[in-house]
Amino acid sequence: MGAVRGTFVDFVDDPWNHPGDETAAVRFVHDGLLVVDDGVIADFGPHDEVAARRPDAAQNATRIADRIILPGFVDGHAHVPQTRILGAYGEQLLPWLEKWVFPEERKYFEAEYARAGIGRFFDNLLASGTTTVQAFTTAKRVTTELLFKEAARRDVRIVTGITAIDRNAPEWAMTTPERFLADSEELIARFHGEGRASYAITPRFALGASPELLEACGRLRAEHPDLHVHTHISEHPDEIRGVLAMYPDCADYLQVYERFGLVGPRFTGGHGVWLSDSEFARLSRAGAAVTFCPCSNLYLGSGLFPLGRAKDPAHPVRLSLGSDIGGGNRFSMLHVLDEAYKVGMLRSAAATDPREAERGRLSWARAFYSATLGGAASLYLDDRVGGFDVGKEADFVVLDWREGPPGADWHASLLWDEPGTPDDLETVGELLFAIMMVGDDRAVAETWIAGERRYRRA
Amino acid sequence: MGAVRGTFVDFVDDPWNHPGDETAAVRFVHDGLLVVDDGVIADFGPHDEVAARRPDAAQNATRIADRIILPGFVDGHAHVPQTRILGAYGEQLLPWLEKWVFPEERKYFEAEYARAGIGRFFDNLLASGTTTVQAFTTAKRVTTELLFKEAARRDVRIVTGITAIDRNAPEWAMTTPERFLADSEELIARFHGEGRASYAITPRFALGASPELLEACGRLRAEHPDLHVHTHISEHPDEIRGVLAMYPDCADYLQVYERFGLVGPRFTGGHGVWLSDSEFARLSRAGAAVTFCPCSNLYLGSGLFPLGRAKDPAHPVRLSLGSDIGGGNRFSMLHVLDEAYKVGMLRSAAATDPREAERGRLSWARAFYSATLGGAASLYLDDRVGGFDVGKEADFVVLDWREGPPGADWHASLLWDEPGTPDDLETVGELLFAIMMVGDDRAVAETWIAGERRYRRA
Repeated sequence: MGAVRGTFVDFVDDPWNHPGDETAAVRFVHDGLLVVDDGVIADFGPHDEVAARRPDAAQNATRIADRIILPGFVDGHAHVPQTRILGAYGEQLLPWLEKWVFPEERKYFEAEYARAGIGRFFDNLLASGTTTVQAFTTAKRVTTELLFKEAARRDVRIVTGITAIDRNAPEWAMTTPERFLADSEELIARFHGEGRASYAITPRFALGASPELLEACGRLRAEHPDLHVHTHISEHPDEIRGVLAMYPDCADYLQVYERFGLVGPRFTGGHGVWLSDSEFARLSRAGAAVTFCPCSNLYLGSGLFPLGRAKDPAHPVRLSLGSDIGGGNRFSMLHVLDEAYKVGMLRSAAATDPREAERGRLSWARAFYSATLGGAASLYLDDRVGGFDVGKEADFVVLDWREGPPGADWHASLLWDEPGTPDDLETVGELLFAIMMVGDDRAVAETWIAGERRYRRA
Repeated sequence: MGAVRGTFVDFVDDPWNHPGDETAAVRFVHDGLLVVDDGVIADFGPHDEVAARRPDAAQNATRIADRIILPGFVDGHAHVPQTRILGAYGEQLLPWLEKWVFPEERKYFEAEYARAGIGRFFDNLLASGTTTVQAFTTAKRVTTELLFKEAARRDVRIVTGITAIDRNAPEWAMTTPERFLADSEELIARFHGEGRASYAITPRFALGASPELLEACGRLRAEHPDLHVHTHISEHPDEIRGVLAMYPDCADYLQVYERFGLVGPRFTGGHGVWLSDSEFARLSRAGAAVTFCPCSNLYLGSGLFPLGRAKDPAHPVRLSLGSDIGGGNRFSMLHVLDEAYKVGMLRSAAATDPREAERGRLSWARAFYSATLGGAASLYLDDRVGGFDVGKEADFVVLDWREGPPGADWHASLLWDEPGTPDDLETVGELLFAIMMVGDDRAVAETWIAGERRYRRA
């Protein structure tokens, strides 16, 4: 039993449901007490109320002053074996894959290198405040197994699984439907639902899988309906053209996944930059999710994600944010928010529908909701993580609005220049916006997982 | 007399002139010696050659190991009085101006606040490796005078001048043509050409100036043809519509400035996101410049600068890069390069002309050229700064490719994991690309101005 006292912000609803009054979706506890029992939140609320119920916990609480405490961040889409090659120069996709991606991913077939790389991956996540991640590994059991083990050791909540790929890649990088099924069944039995791990059926993307392999994925999902499905969708126009050439009887990209029975709750399509309204509507009805990866979409020139359309109340999709390491060039979810805001502004400026334009504006509440509870809900993990409700896992990130690049400190002092944290939500929101637009990973002072401090800024 | 020994990279030409062989535009001295006399480069070249000529200097040289030394960065467009409000939430332009920009700028009419703000501005520049800046102040003499004085004290090369604005702003923020002329003449006499300062005739933008005020600007330029002209152009479609409504007989935005005799050498238009090919061609013929401010253009949703068109050999414009503090949300020119690369990739992906697409790709050489010699040339200061030629001012930035956000170090180790600096330009280029895409201001280990170290990372 432990406890933390400080200023807490989390979300009780999607701020997009409250245009004009987004703070209705926010829970703000200026002087709060969060009590943890066996990694899970046992009590939470205003300090004095909780302390009256739990005097012992209050007595021994860790005091976190001058900081804003948020739920740990959820990174909805990342590639573990690309940890080292993030931000490599890619004049075109093919040379980039050949020069950087394939040679690096191959190293993860060796346990020793994979262990080192996976260690770096988690080091970077924790330094970025990320406590839940949905990630790609490789087509090999060894990488995936080591990833599950290291996630368990770090207590990071992970959604992952062997990559299903048997096309359009070097021979050694691929698997077969039979091997994929056998490897998956073994790892599902060993890791799915153990500790904080969930298994994801993970076809790399439609272009990388034969119909037989996608069928195998579908069979796996039918047998294990509680598994996740994690893949890519509609990242780049060339990719979409390739997919439709492979499946000329499919009207759009999503239909390929639908045909193989992959789209439903716990399905996440990475990117979705070029999804049509029909595809958004079908994803919405299916309870499926999309991950918005702005750093990657900008870095690779893929396009500008239509945030205002994705959040259309006529067909809202579950939405997470992703670093997409290493298509994205930064691990920090704060940096992802910076870029997501910019993409939203560009799309909003170009939108002809003013309501779509409004939905494309990533206020601080929408931003941090998406990086916490929204991301958790997209993974159907919002009963476990993403907020401070009693019964959830005690993951949180401690933010220091004064830290960041040159300029962050003085900017923050314009918003709040008193000791302690502001006691009004408007100012706290301004500080959080400053953290995402002027700050960076330096603002992450501490990262706690299941009630234990796992990272502290040097 | 002092000297620095280390690994130097600068540019001898525009890399866009050497497609397919950009390194022809690069000067790379793996073990170099740069000798400084009275702030100016007295000798430069391979260590052994220079040491033979200057044994004393070589003997006492400061050794900078494990670093890449580049010319100091040139920031072509920034607003000093917005130092504190960078990255403030702007759902729309008007509330943003009213809530943040105007109240903040007004504080710079008080000498004490202005002094503090200007000090912060330069602190941030130096921590970002920026040693030359073209900046806006306010419409008041006091701010501009203090800015010139502080730049002189810091030895930063500055191009600035009183803002000409008499429309579309609060009463107190404006000047009159008469006052503007009188104030300008006084400051020109006192500061232009003194030390490292140049005076810029600075109409805020066409929407903010009456025809009489633009006429006053033109008169000033006719009387002082060696002055700079610094303004905004074609940042946002609404702004362009407003300008053309004011000047219905002008075919485009540039024609307004042309009509008042403002466009020629040393003219810089900030942004230029929406310039037509005709405008690019006229700017090119006039020897005028444009500043590409990617952070700001993304942050405010202004649009994607057409880099591939701006560098069209049929009408190449002089181009600098700008932070546009505080429309831009970061001071670091490395961050500006990150965002510039992304804008270039997005435009290239959408370009129908493959040559335009190619020109839009911001390789490391194009990027750092633009932030150094290219920026200097856009200001007609390339005889003074931007490179390591003998006779230029000894401004340089010392870059450490291992520093940056979580992930930077391990990424860099993939490119270079030996002691010392690489002795091949390909690897050095990869490290520089890593610095701009994975690193950030933390990669700036030291900033030297006129041969003196003015900043060292803590």
